Amino acid sequence: MKNKNIYTDLATETRDLYLQDSQEDEIDGIDFNIFEDDEYSVKISFIEILNEKGEKSMGKPIGSYVTLESDELKVNDIDAHEKIIKLLADEIGKLHKLSEKSSVLIIGLGNRSVTPDSLGPKVVSKILVTRHIKEVLPESLGDGVRSVSALSPGVMGMTGIETKETVKGVVDRIKPDLVIAIDALAARSVSRINSTIQLSDTGISPGAGLGNNRKKLDIETLGVKVLAIGVPTVVDAATLINDSLDKILDEMIQECSESSYFYEMLNSLSSEEKHGLISNILAPCDGNMFVTPKEVDATIDRLSNIIANAINIALHPNITKEDINRYMY
Amino acid sequence: MKNKNIYTDLATETRDLYLQDSQEDEIDGIDFNIFEDDEYSVKISFIEILNEKGEKSMGKPIGSYVTLESDELKVNDIDAHEKIIKLLADEIGKLHKLSEKSSVLIIGLGNRSVTPDSLGPKVVSKILVTRHIKEVLPESLGDGVRSVSALSPGVMGMTGIETKETVKGVVDRIKPDLVIAIDALAARSVSRINSTIQLSDTGISPGAGLGNNRKKLDIETLGVKVLAIGVPTVVDAATLINDSLDKILDEMIQECSESSYFYEMLNSLSSEEKHGLISNILAPCDGNMFVTPKEVDATIDRLSNIIANAINIALHPNITKEDINRYMY
Amino acid sequence: MKNKNIYTDLATETRDLYLQDSQEDEIDGIDFNIFEDDEYSVKISFIEILNEKGEKSMGKPIGSYVTLESDELKVNDIDAHEKIIKLLADEIGKLHKLSEKSSVLIIGLGNRSVTPDSLGPKVVSKILVTRHIKEVLPESLGDGVRSVSALSPGVMGMTGIETKETVKGVVDRIKPDLVIAIDALAARSVSRINSTIQLSDTGISPGAGLGNNRKKLDIETLGVKVLAIGVPTVVDAATLINDSLDKILDEMIQECSESSYFYEMLNSLSSEEKHGLISNILAPCDGNMFVTPKEVDATIDRLSNIIANAINIALHPNITKEDINRYMY
Amino acid sequence: MKNKNIYTDLATETRDLYLQDSQEDEIDGIDFNIFEDDEYSVKISFIEILNEKGEKSMGKPIGSYVTLESDELKVNDIDAHEKIIKLLADEIGKLHKLSEKSSVLIIGLGNRSVTPDSLGPKVVSKILVTRHIKEVLPESLGDGVRSVSALSPGVMGMTGIETKETVKGVVDRIKPDLVIAIDALAARSVSRINSTIQLSDTGISPGAGLGNNRKKLDIETLGVKVLAIGVPTVVDAATLINDSLDKILDEMIQECSESSYFYEMLNSLSSEEKHGLISNILAPCDGNMFVTPKEVDATIDRLSNIIANAINIALHPNITKEDINRYMY
Repeated sequence: MKNKNIYTDLATETRDLYLQDSQEDEIDGIDFNIFEDDEYSVKISFIEILNEKGEKSMGKPIGSYVTLESDELKVNDIDAHEKIIKLLADEIGKLHKLSEKSSVLIIGLGNRSVTPDSLGPKVVSKILVTRHIKEVLPESLGDGVRSVSALSPGVMGMTGIETKETVKGVVDRIKPDLVIAIDALAARSVSRINSTIQLSDTGISPGAGLGNNRKKLDIETLGVKVLAIGVPTVVDAATLINDSLDKILDEMIQECSESSYFYEMLNSLSSEEKHGLISNILAPCDGNMFVTPKEVDATIDRLSNIIANAINIALHPNITKEDINRYMY
Repeated sequence: MKNKNIYTDLATETRDLYLQDSQEDEIDGIDFNIFEDDEYSVKISFIEILNEKGEKSMGKPIGSYVTLESDELKVNDIDAHEKIIKLLADEIGKLHKLSEKSSVLIIGLGNRSVTPDSLGPKVVSKILVTRHIKEVLPESLGDGVRSVSALSPGVMGMTGIETKETVKGVVDRIKPDLVIAIDALAARSVSRINSTIQLSDTGISPGAGLGNNRKKLDIETLGVKVLAIGVPTVVDAATLINDSLDKILDEMIQECSESSYFYEMLNSLSSEEKHGLISNILAPCDGNMFVTPKEVDATIDRLSNIIANAINIALHPNITKEDINRYMY
Repeated sequence: MKNKNIYTDLATETRDLYLQDSQEDEIDGIDFNIFEDDEYSVKISFIEILNEKGEKSMGKPIGSYVTLESDELKVNDIDAHEKIIKLLADEIGKLHKLSEKSSVLIIGLGNRSVTPDSLGPKVVSKILVTRHIKEVLPESLGDGVRSVSALSPGVMGMTGIETKETVKGVVDRIKPDLVIAIDALAARSVSRINSTIQLSDTGISPGAGLGNNRKKLDIETLGVKVLAIGVPTVVDAATLINDSLDKILDEMIQECSESSYFYEMLNSLSSEEKHGLISNILAPCDGNMFVTPKEVDATIDRLSNIIANAINIALHPNITKEDINRYMY
Repeated sequence: MKNKNIYTDLATETRDLYLQDSQEDEIDGIDFNIFEDDEYSVKISFIEILNEKGEKSMGKPIGSYVTLESDELKVNDIDAHEKIIKLLADEIGKLHKLSEKSSVLIIGLGNRSVTPDSLGPKVVSKILVTRHIKEVLPESLGDGVRSVSALSPGVMGMTGIETKETVKGVVDRIKPDLVIAIDALAARSVSRINSTIQLSDTGISPGAGLGNNRKKLDIETLGVKVLAIGVPTVVDAATLINDSLDKILDEMIQECSESSYFYEMLNSLSSEEKHGLISNILAPCDGNMFVTPKEVDATIDRLSNIIANAINIALHPNITKEDINRYMY
């Protein structure tokens, strides 16, 4: 199966697909490390794209990609979630060093009216915002509480405005030192859905998860570093059908490997033909369909809690529970 | 491709699949008629399952199944929607004759927190309820306004209660003459999604659309006739992959029809094998995944308006706009 | 100020008003006790209405009324909230002894679309429901996990059905051993708003908080004991104006106490006259107005978390965090 | 009753209070006209503040204030609403002349989680946005369809950002020719609630309705003209109590007018004393309380429909229903 399109929002999936495709053991120009927490079966992969070579192989810009994976994200395990919150807060802190005076703007991407796309706005609703207090009563906040603001800019179909324009406009006014953008992503594989959180310091393209190619939010477009936090909550329907078909044809090819004629036949079904057939099937909905699990509402609630807590802890390191009490409302 | 599972919530899809499978022109024991409105390209199919023979072929109980289809349901065409509302109100009226004193309970099935499953609760929120006024001030309502009540019982995963139990409990207390139940359904084909409204007088199984096999709401379980209104808003992911695979293999078989060996090979991929392969792919989400279009929020808003308006008109035939004004709030 | 109407949903307010009015130190036929937790300034009052005499004085039925008061409910103090959750869970447990096999139905009263009235539905959305699992896989739940179901029946203006009918219907079907009903109440005094939680074992009248006189949910109407949990989230506008006027006139009377003529004048403004004047002011909105704090959204979120957690702990006493993990979804 | 604070968001209330207070017939420096539609009992008042003198008397900037009043806004009268939509669309068009190429940004002020404050975000959700299509496919829109975008910037307590900063940032990026800002206001009188729509061309202070003094959105702060649309949905609790008290004392004074001693007594209750007493009563909620009708959810739905429709018609004058069909989604 050649010519396989290996695009996915997740760096770790890209890497897996590249290695599988190229039959190699590592990719030139990238660093790869893994950390595993056995107690709660949490795995964190660190992919560092070091140079243009890595950039080309991965189809992603130079920078750090941290992927936290755990099936505990799919269930309601409080202890595991506390552990994951701590690990996540640590990684957020490591991806971008903040000084005590740094100010941060949190951007919740996505459409609050479509359940699997509502992750970003839900996280924003749980962020401990302090900027308005910092401006007026800085002394009331004490040390270790940073200036944090948060915005859900909505989606272009509802606002008529590119998300990039809204965010750039606000960034120009309030001049944060860092933007953290949260979005629902599209995974390649069903097994990733709601079990993976990806951090990266290279920015994010709003709406990538639900199939729109929007202008990127990154240091070039916003003038300030953008830390992206993404969770795959859907798989694109065309991609899922295509990949499923590949797996099934692979299976058939293996079973019937003695028949070179048959092998040729199956292999001759080109990507284009398959793509055309699948497009036909999905045409009545313009191809813009996604696949998501039935219990997506509960999952989005759970994930938004975990991510909002990790951000709150990462941004206010000296904060104690008593401090949160004073600032939360 | 034998052994094809032809189950779908839509009678008209079942009929198409049966005819295609059996290579026949009609099904014994069912009546079939079509009405077409050319101005707005609305098609209404009437399937009457007449006897046990028809019941067996269709896998659905004896009764009437009315399917309104129009691509206008997918766009925002006010004139077409007014026409569809009128046609729908007429068909609701024909499926069950109500006397002036009849009372009706509207049940909105589904989960309001999962966008494509929120059709039923959204319709209920737009129903003109009058029962509480009828009980206390019947004379204030005048003629032609029936006693209407409405309830969204929630889903079992949230309540711990079978929907049938909640509805049966309420029916036993308020003793309506008719129950109208609205639910999101699963279609077999992507082309049906959000372009089809099915009415039937044989009851409904809550949650069928999102894959749960719940106890049916019908005259046997509730003791009162149940008119069901369903709109396919999703396709089950496993079904979509399976059907896509079938289409693609069919295509391959046709292309290479000269090779009887190849034909055998492809055809030998049994339903069970395919089912096993697909289950494997979807296993990480327990197989409970659905496919739905990106703009599902706007679509559900539009469809719930159309259905609620049709019900309001069908149930209060003598009502004028002035009357609505007096009773709505 | 004679003829003062002392009605309020809160037994502790009724008692205060009675004592103030009667100038006595205690009320015949009621027992009164107080517990105070100094660490978190939580006060719990226990009012036991023992007989008909107490019933008459209080205008409330024989039974137990437990009122937890703490200004910590108005702020975001995690430690205080954990303490309050534990105290609340204890009192729920004491008000009605449950056996291991007892099943409980939670009813969330109120209108989810009006922020200060959405407490009940919000609590229900956070309840750990187990009844559907208990029915099918009882052994999977282990000991100490009771059968719990939960329902938000909606308000009569939306459903056309008296809440009592919906609840009675469901109770008759699923036959719980106890009903716990949660509702937003109306306080008499602004100082009670969002700082008080009242438990009682005598049932509840849905919608009392927002001014409607609905049929009571209690052992007589439902055939099963009803434990009520209420939080005052509003003050009725007419009541607030009336009480404010009384306070101001009292102040004037005290200031000018030497003038018996003036005293007579002010005192001669009868309840009826005042009531008439206030009704006039509120007439354009039919008098159905309520007063609530600006930040009511955050407050309702906080209170629904506290109450749902207390119920979850009270009903599943042997549950560990690991168990919750297994049953929550 | 001197020293009465006559502040209110509504110019027409300010005028009434000024005239009543000053016992004059007209205000120097303002023009006043009335239009009445008898069929639907709609009244439109036009207040033009012409110069600094008018500005000082009214406590509002020079400019036009158009107030539409109708009790039909409180009920569900479709015909009256269609009439009001047309009148409103006309007045919007007259307040600011747009050329065919003008672009407009709609801003929905307020907090979507607090029912009476959610008017702005609800209007925004019903606006026909076209800017993103205009940018890419201008020819597909035809004539008479203007470039419209829409944003709900959230409230400062949730975002940490002054609303003015967010709006200014977006305005600087997308450079609209006009901003239309919608907000829930506070009325002085209960009779205004939900029965009045005020338009003005002088800008708006976000959050005025619920008591926060935010930075104004107007041509000075944004660099572009701001047309404000406001509906009073609440009365401030302290204001309502104060005004009620005044009315009742006025009544007492009139009744007992023969007693000059009594008159002196009552009149001696100064504004400060009253204010102090009322502040005391509301202190437990920091004084930030509002009064709103019980059925506020239905009212906000109705008003947001009317305002959104009026804006859609005013901004796209040549649009036909068929055009809406093509652009709406």
